Parts: sequence; structure tokens; C-alpha cells
Amino acid sequence: MRHEIAPQLQQLTPLRVTIWNEFRHEKTKPSVREIYPQGMHHAIAEGLTGNFVIHTATLDEPEHGLTEELLANTDVLIWWGHVAHKEVADEIVDRVAARVLQGMGFIALHSSHYAKVFKKLMGTTCALLYRDAGEKERLWVTAPGHPIAEGIGPFFELEREEMYGEFFDIPTPDEVVFTSWFEGGNIFRSGCCFNRGLGKIFYFQPGHELYPTYRDANVLRVISNAVRWAAPVKRDALRFGKDVPALEVIRSKGME
Amino acid sequence: MRHEIAPQLQQLTPLRVTIWNEFRHEKTKPSVREIYPQGMHHAIAEGLTGNFVIHTATLDEPEHGLTEELLANTDVLIWWGHVAHKEVADEIVDRVAARVLQGMGFIALHSSHYAKVFKKLMGTTCALLYRDAGEKERLWVTAPGHPIAEGIGPFFELEREEMYGEFFDIPTPDEVVFTSWFEGGNIFRSGCCFNRGLGKIFYFQPGHELYPTYRDANVLRVISNAVRWAAPVKRDALRFGKDVPALEVIRSKGME
Amino acid sequence: MRHEIAPQLQQLTPLRVTIWNEFRHEKTKPSVREIYPQGMHHAIAEGLTGNFVIHTATLDEPEHGLTEELLANTDVLIWWGHVAHKEVADEIVDRVAARVLQGMGFIALHSSHYAKVFKKLMGTTCALLYRDAGEKERLWVTAPGHPIAEGIGPFFELEREEMYGEFFDIPTPDEVVFTSWFEGGNIFRSGCCFNRGLGKIFYFQPGHELYPTYRDANVLRVISNAVRWAAPVKRDALRFGKDVPALEVIRSKGME
Amino acid sequence: MRHEIAPQLQQLTPLRVTIWNEFRHEKTKPSVREIYPQGMHHAIAEGLTGNFVIHTATLDEPEHGLTEELLANTDVLIWWGHVAHKEVADEIVDRVAARVLQGMGFIALHSSHYAKVFKKLMGTTCALLYRDAGEKERLWVTAPGHPIAEGIGPFFELEREEMYGEFFDIPTPDEVVFTSWFEGGNIFRSGCCFNRGLGKIFYFQPGHELYPTYRDANVLRVISNAVRWAAPVKRDALRFGKDVPALEVIRSKGME
Repeated sequence: MRHEIAPQLQQLTPLRVTIWNEFRHEKTKPSVREIYPQGMHHAIAEGLTGNFVIHTATLDEPEHGLTEELLANTDVLIWWGHVAHKEVADEIVDRVAARVLQGMGFIALHSSHYAKVFKKLMGTTCALLYRDAGEKERLWVTAPGHPIAEGIGPFFELEREEMYGEFFDIPTPDEVVFTSWFEGGNIFRSGCCFNRGLGKIFYFQPGHELYPTYRDANVLRVISNAVRWAAPVKRDALRFGKDVPALEVIRSKGME
Repeated sequence: MRHEIAPQLQQLTPLRVTIWNEFRHEKTKPSVREIYPQGMHHAIAEGLTGNFVIHTATLDEPEHGLTEELLANTDVLIWWGHVAHKEVADEIVDRVAARVLQGMGFIALHSSHYAKVFKKLMGTTCALLYRDAGEKERLWVTAPGHPIAEGIGPFFELEREEMYGEFFDIPTPDEVVFTSWFEGGNIFRSGCCFNRGLGKIFYFQPGHELYPTYRDANVLRVISNAVRWAAPVKRDALRFGKDVPALEVIRSKGME
Repeated sequence: MRHEIAPQLQQLTPLRVTIWNEFRHEKTKPSVREIYPQGMHHAIAEGLTGNFVIHTATLDEPEHGLTEELLANTDVLIWWGHVAHKEVADEIVDRVAARVLQGMGFIALHSSHYAKVFKKLMGTTCALLYRDAGEKERLWVTAPGHPIAEGIGPFFELEREEMYGEFFDIPTPDEVVFTSWFEGGNIFRSGCCFNRGLGKIFYFQPGHELYPTYRDANVLRVISNAVRWAAPVKRDALRFGKDVPALEVIRSKGME
Repeated sequence: MRHEIAPQLQQLTPLRVTIWNEFRHEKTKPSVREIYPQGMHHAIAEGLTGNFVIHTATLDEPEHGLTEELLANTDVLIWWGHVAHKEVADEIVDRVAARVLQGMGFIALHSSHYAKVFKKLMGTTCALLYRDAGEKERLWVTAPGHPIAEGIGPFFELEREEMYGEFFDIPTPDEVVFTSWFEGGNIFRSGCCFNRGLGKIFYFQPGHELYPTYRDANVLRVISNAVRWAAPVKRDALRFGKDVPALEVIRSKGME
């Protein structure tokens, strides 16, 4: 027996992606500017593949470029910060964190483990070990059925990356998609998923400013996959506060 | 700054769904036949919404209808069994379980908590409490950002269902999407996700044969969502066995 | 073959428990004072069983009673707050949260789901549904092998409790030990474990001030079990920051 | 205010540990016999520290030494097997697995990832990558607050071990206490906790027969810690099957 269901055209509305970049290293360090002349956000925007409409925003814009309007129209926010975490205004941090809990996806890249927004959403120090020795990194897939690992082999390599090592002081991730091996003796949970409120968060470790990581095909594939995974589901806002009982029998006891 | 990416047409290849039904109650119990004259598998097939091509298979067909060929061409297998779990041949059980670990999605409905395939994949007794009193069930969403809960309110109700209650002897689920309240005093993790190998498994509790559960819009929506969630990711088969070392320096030590 | 190992006397150093109570309802509401004439903290202190040395502390003491010295000498902190969450000074909140990440156990009771410390450690809104109708609650054990459920039957009941219902906006717990059924139609993950840094956190829902919950034998047993579970393991402080590579071969490449 | 609770003497009943060893390599390979002249089980028995009464059992004994009586009197079973997994009788496998679900702790060492009991309890292939090159292994603690990591530094090293690498086809562990770095380029979740029924399972990767791993102080410390962690909690057997409703009001509807 065979039932053929007329293919209902999947809605092809593009996902609205905002890439936020601190955008300081690219202005101050020639070696970084050489790799990313227009900023990392540009490189990432160019490298993503999918049905996406992409905006970018940077620290030095008014409201760091993260207006209420833009956030309300963002499905997934990608974040890269490093030397200027402290300059991000608490008001904007609260605004972004609230949007994540309401369903906006959030992808924290590399040194954004110390971004105020990420730390606030994690509730831990998010501290780790590090070493910038330009050593080889191998990212092993530890959740091969996960959509974020789609199209990635058993592992992929980055010839030179900054080492980030355990213990990484984060809550136990809901899923660990990648775990990295570093030439110098360390390992790291380098691709971690967290569910928070209605929002999905992905932390992805590669991306030191001194290496052309965001031009690597595997890295861009992973981020593209993560955008699709982190897209909000369609549902009503969460309901909290005073509730009423369900059953007539309860009402008859005067419980309301 | 705004980057517009030309919408790449998402591949609209339909998902290949197989619905397996024991198909005994419908033949032997008039009250069940009245609800599901062509069998539950028909009702589910008619009720699913999505870009699916659906096959059905039943216990009394040769190889229970689950040939190597059909399974090789199934993205997601839905399973309903109850009184005849023991009649399912071990060879077919092994065949199905192996396909799940290789990536085929598997949705176990209601009394299929005791299906051989499900028990084999769980490794526990899968025992539970039960009571068939036609009582009210309320399914609360406990993971509202999960794609399986898309479009579902804070809860939905079934006026009459068989109670399944804790303790449910399953491994800790990777995600609990629904937790049920039963009028008679019990609760149950009624929508549970498990990752096994490359495969995704969803157990969904509603579906006693005496009630028209598979004609309920919310139930059908959940199963449709679950099919999409459980669809295999595109990737190479897993690689196991003898490995070679990564680094020249290791090779130079004669480690290969 | 049989090896008898001379029983090494387990160290019988008592656990140092601090019970913190907002201690306001007991002063302002006669109905609460009647149940807890000396405050809930007294009732809990009297009811715990184990090798514990117990201190208590309350909101209106200097530093809310939570001095650096007391916290440094506390293995597990129990917390009850409700109407005065906002009066807890941020400095003390930060102090307590830091101690938890360094290993101090933390047990948040009932309305402490909205305590500043708990929310900071969770990173989510910690919002929920509630209804104070004095209805029956049944707490089902959903992790029967967990040490916090030791000695507890399949469930236990409280004749009258405030309903707390899902969706409870917390991160996915590392373990859900209890899930509650409420007479009026709701369910709730009422006993939840979280690992954060070196610390263990247990949220336990029962304990509305209008009912004698902290005189219930099962509730007291659960909290006593939770104290033992949340006790810090003996280990050095976590190590973060700059790391050195492991291998001579790496050093020879000038990576340090 | 200070409450001093008279220290109730903790029950000092020793834990009953059974160490099961295939015990073949030690008889057939001189290089292994040199390291473990009386078998690995002896080395482990001598090396454990704690209030334990230890029995050992081996494959070639009647019932593989695992009689109903011994298992009924075992709190935690440690298992080492490799070349003779297939010789373990299915009846004994079922007996052991059933006892684990009833609460007996189970510690699977090294090549026991392929032991029938372990695979049955996991439900997956438990396949992995391997390489026996005598390379250096570093075990990093990725859950430093976990009792199994008590007393262990940020990592410890084994100068020579067999490499086991990802992807390791196990269910997502409930907790990953150790993740290993191998000199040759691989990583591995080398210390994994699983809750199954009332039982606790710990898989621990080190222990290739060609290296003196079970004479290493850290390895023995971890196994000793794991025994304490895996000890059964005291509670009644699980209750399954037909249940009765809770409430008079339900009974009045004729639901029983």
C-alpha cells in the first residue's frame, strides 16, 4: 500500500541572520586586516550558504548596531567579540539575552565565550585554558547524527588555531557536536549546544583573529548548519504567571 | 550593511516515511475497527502533513513488510505494536535496529514501548505503570523550543486515553518534549527523544486502540513534526576500526 | 578467591550546612507564624538527619548573615526566599554564586526559583505557572537510582501545596529526580539537579509558607539526601588561563 | 544561631565488589603475565582503596564465576574482557544485565566496550577507532565536580596506552567525566556515566593488557571512586504494571 501526499511547498521564507562583530582587531592590527580587510563579519557573511538574508552590526555603531527593531527581525544572531567585551552596554546585553530566551538563535564564536551575553546566558565563569601557538587543531565529530555536523567528515583540521582547553567552565551542554584535539596536548568541547527558554545557543570555538579560520570551508559549513539548527520554531510566546485549574471537579471544590 | 544572498532553492525531495502497524486489534475487535476501519496505519498516513511519500507495512506480510529494500528506502519508520510483539521475527528486529543506528529515524508509538526493536535500542526493560480507565490526559510541553513542539500550545488534551505512568524504565532521554498529566493521579514522560548512532528516536505515548487518538489534530501535528526532526542528516557512514596516527612526528616514532 | 580489605574508617567529619531564610512571612503573617513559630529555617534545621553541623542566617542580619567567613566554612547552603528577593544585595548574590561555582552545594527551595542567586546561576527567567489553591500534590520519582531519592517510594503526597506548573523556564536539568502531579491539572519538574562549575545545585519545589511542608518526613528526607549529594568533592581549585604545551616535540617547534 | 546535630554514625558496612576478568591474556601472553602474574583482577583488587570486600571471578569458572548468589551479594561489578566476549554465555549476560537494572553498579573497563553485557545495556554498536601504538594518553577531567574525579588533578597521563578514538557509538552519556587526548591525533570520551534502571554504569577506557595501567595510582583512584559512585541506593524494587487511580473523585466516576 502506498500513499502519495501532494508535496506541499515548504515555505521558502529566508532566515534573517545578523552577524555582530566587535570589529577592532581588523582596524588596529595590520596582520588581521590583511586576512579580513572588511572585517570578519564580511568574511562570514560571504561564506555562509543557505537561504539567508544577512545583516551585520558592529560595536561602534549606535546601540552597537543592535536596535530593538533589528533584533525583532533577526532569527539568528552570530557574535564575535574579544578585547572590548566590557564596552558592550549592559542594556544591550539584556536586550539580546531576552531575545534569545524568546526564541532568537545565538551563535557565539571563539573568544565570545567571554562575551557578556554568553556569560549571562550560561550563569558560569566560562573560563578556560588557552595558548596561542598557532598549533594544529583537529575537530572530531562526537554527535554525527546532529544537523550541525551534516556534511562534515569524522573530523576536520585547522592547520593553525589558538588552543582553547578544558576545563571549560560552562553548564553541561545539551549536546556536544565537536570535541577538539590540539597538537600541544589539550582537548576542548569545541561545538556545544544549549537550549535556553525558546532559544537555541551554539558555541563554536574556532576563529582566532590571526588565522584565516572564517575562510575555511568546513568552518563555514558548520556555521551555516548552526544557523539552520538555531532558527526559531513557530509558536506562541511562553505563558507564565497565575494559572487556573483544569477540571470541573476541582472547581467544585472552590479551588479557583 | 546588508548582504542579500540569492535564495538557493531548498531541495524539495520528499521524506520517505514507512508506517508499520501490527494490525490485529482492527481485525479482531469491532470497537477498534469502528474507529480505524482500514487500520491505524491508514489513519496516521492520512493525517500526516508534510512533504512525505508514505508506505505502510504490517505484521502479517512476508518479512512483516519490512524488506531490506523498503528499509533502505525509508527515511523515518513509524511503529505501532501491542499484542503481538513476540511474533516479530528477531531477524527483522535486528535489521530495523541496525538501520536506525545507520540513520533511519524511528518513531515508537504508545504500546510500542514494549516492541522488541525499541527495547533493544534502549537496553532497559521499558516497563511502566498503566491503567485503562479512559481518563483525561493533558500533555504539557516541557521543551517549547524543540521542533517537535512547533505549533503546539502550552499543552493539549485528550479526553480519553490509557494512562501510562512513571517510573518509565528508559535511559534518561536526550530531550523530554512532553510530560503528561493524568486525571487519576499519574504523570509520564510522554514525548522523549533519544540519539542512537546516526539515528534519532522519538517515543510518543498517546494511541490506545480504543480511542480515536490518531484522528486528533495535535497528535498528528506532533507525529508530523517528529518525522521532520527524525529525518537522517546527509553524511557518510560512520568509520570504525583500526586508525592511523595524524602527525609526521608520530610516524617518525614508528607508531604506525 | 576473596580479598578482604581492612575497612579504612571513612572520615566522619560532619558536613557544614547553612540554612538561609528570608524570614519575613513568619513575622508578618500569623498563619505562617503558627506553623513555623521560630521560622522555617528552624523547622528545617530540626528536621534534617545526617552528620551535619547546621548554621542559620536570615535576610535582616548584617550581610544577610552570609559573611565571607561563614560561606568559606559552608559545604551546602539551603535557601528560602519569596517576597524580598529584591532586598538581597547584589554583592552578596555575587559572593554566593561565586562560592557555588567553587564547589559549595546550593539547595533552592520553592519560591527561591526567583531568588537572584538562582536566576544568576541559571541564566534564564526561571518563570513558571502557579496557583495557590491548597491542592494535592504528588511527587513522582523519575530517577529512582539517584541518591536524592534514596528511601523514597515511587511517589509521595502533600495534601496541600501551592501549584507550580510547566513550562518552567530553566536550562534542561542535568537530572530530574522528581516530577509532580497537581490535582488541578498541572505537572512540574519539582526536583532538578544542575552541575555548575565545581558546585552542585538542587531545586526542590515544595514549601509554600502556608502549609507545614517542612514538617513532612519525605520532604525532610529529600532535603537531607540532597545535602549529602551536593557536598563538595575534595579537589584543588580549578585552573584557568594561559597553558603550556605538553610535549617535547611541540616545544622543539618553539610553540611555548 | 547554631544547631549542633549529634553525629549519627554513618553505616560502615563495606561495599561488596566483584571483579570479573576474562583472564586469558595473562595465561597465553608472557608479556602480559609479566605485568599481571596473577591476573588483572588481582592487580585491581590490590589497588582499590576504600571500605570494600572484594571477590573475583573469571571466565573459565563454572557460570563464569557469576552465580546468582554472588551477584545477589554484589554491590558493584567490575568487568574486563577482550578476546573471549563471545564465550560469555547469554544466560549469564542476561543475569548480569538484569541485576544492573535492579541496582548493581557496573564498571566496564577498556575493551569491555564490546562485552555482551555492556552492548546489551547500551543498545548501540559500541564501535570505535583504535590503534595500538603505545602512545601517550592524557585524560582531561571534563566534570571536575563529579565524585568520580575526586582527588584527580586537571588531567593525568599514561605514558603508553592503546588509543581508542571517536566516534564512539554509545548513547549520549549522562555525564562525561574524562575526555582523552592521544599523541597520535585522536580524542575519546574515556570516562562515561550512564543511568539504567536503578543501576549506575561507568565506562573507563584505560587498561590495555600490554601496559601496567592497573598499577597506575590515578587509574586505581578513579576506579575506587567509581565503585563508591556506582553503589546502589537503598530503596524498594521498582513497581511496574497495573496501577490504581489516586483520587476518590476519580473512583466515583467508575474509573477503577
